Amino acid sequence: MRVFGIDCGTEITGFGVVESVETPALRRIACLASGAIRLSKSKPLPLRLAELHRALILELKRWEPQVVAVEEVFYSVNAKSALKLGQVRGVALLAAAEVQLPVAEYAPLSIKSSVVGYGLAKKEQVQFMVARLLDLKEIPQSADAADALAIAICHLHTAQTLALQGAQA
Amino acid sequence: MRVFGIDCGTEITGFGVVESVETPALRRIACLASGAIRLSKSKPLPLRLAELHRALILELKRWEPQVVAVEEVFYSVNAKSALKLGQVRGVALLAAAEVQLPVAEYAPLSIKSSVVGYGLAKKEQVQFMVARLLDLKEIPQSADAADALAIAICHLHTAQTLALQGAQA
Repeated sequence: MRVFGIDCGTEITGFGVVESVETPALRRIACLASGAIRLSKSKPLPLRLAELHRALILELKRWEPQVVAVEEVFYSVNAKSALKLGQVRGVALLAAAEVQLPVAEYAPLSIKSSVVGYGLAKKEQVQFMVARLLDLKEIPQSADAADALAIAICHLHTAQTLALQGAQA
Repeated sequence: MRVFGIDCGTEITGFGVVESVETPALRRIACLASGAIRLSKSKPLPLRLAELHRALILELKRWEPQVVAVEEVFYSVNAKSALKLGQVRGVALLAAAEVQLPVAEYAPLSIKSSVVGYGLAKKEQVQFMVARLLDLKEIPQSADAADALAIAICHLHTAQTLALQGAQA
């Protein structure tokens, strides 16, 4: 299964593509791609959203995942930030629908628990564990790309657990 | 000048198309179209956003306006509502950018002042004055469509005032 994780942000939106690799001898998760889409602050918002939309559609078509995973939004932010984040998130969800992919949402606590084993882990711990789990030579430089990979890994772990539960039932 | 007004809402998004008609004997605003795009609650959010996106692009291409006008968001709402509204607003702004149109934003107070002459006017007053200004036979049934028309009228009034100021300068 190939998962496309998106970490929406008002300035930078991270993405990460992971795939579960299963052989009789081995089960691991491979990282196919990750990156950060940085929106130029100088342009008007509609044009920035169009840039983001184009970039996401391009990556989704390039990597042909089976599912898109995003973070559920944490409501401790204020209304102004929530509106700005919502605008970006709306465009990301639209892009997933346009390439006919289902979208799975995970709470920040679940994502951190799934990757670090601890729901209140710090950003650096997430980056470190993402690199470990994906066997990357380097820790992802962009925290946004690392977060997107963490969201995608969380989906794979959840799907594997569900499959295991199904097999045992 | 032809203006496409959008009133973004989490359940219903209104739109309205108005045009300034100027002859030596007459200056009035004509209503070309208005409507409300209602999103089916039963579908997942990404599919609802895709429906809205399709509907907006269709209307924008059908009416070929020169500009899109939207309401600036009023931050008295809570973060959860702001996020939901932001998701819809992001898709609306994206649609405008995709058909290469500039987007003008107006504060709720300016819109009401421009249409009713009073910034704290009630919804019914806006609906009534929109019908009067556009010479409609009936008051728009959908408050969302009426609000979208009011936003578009506000843009025309503002553009006319700016043109007048330019002529006098």
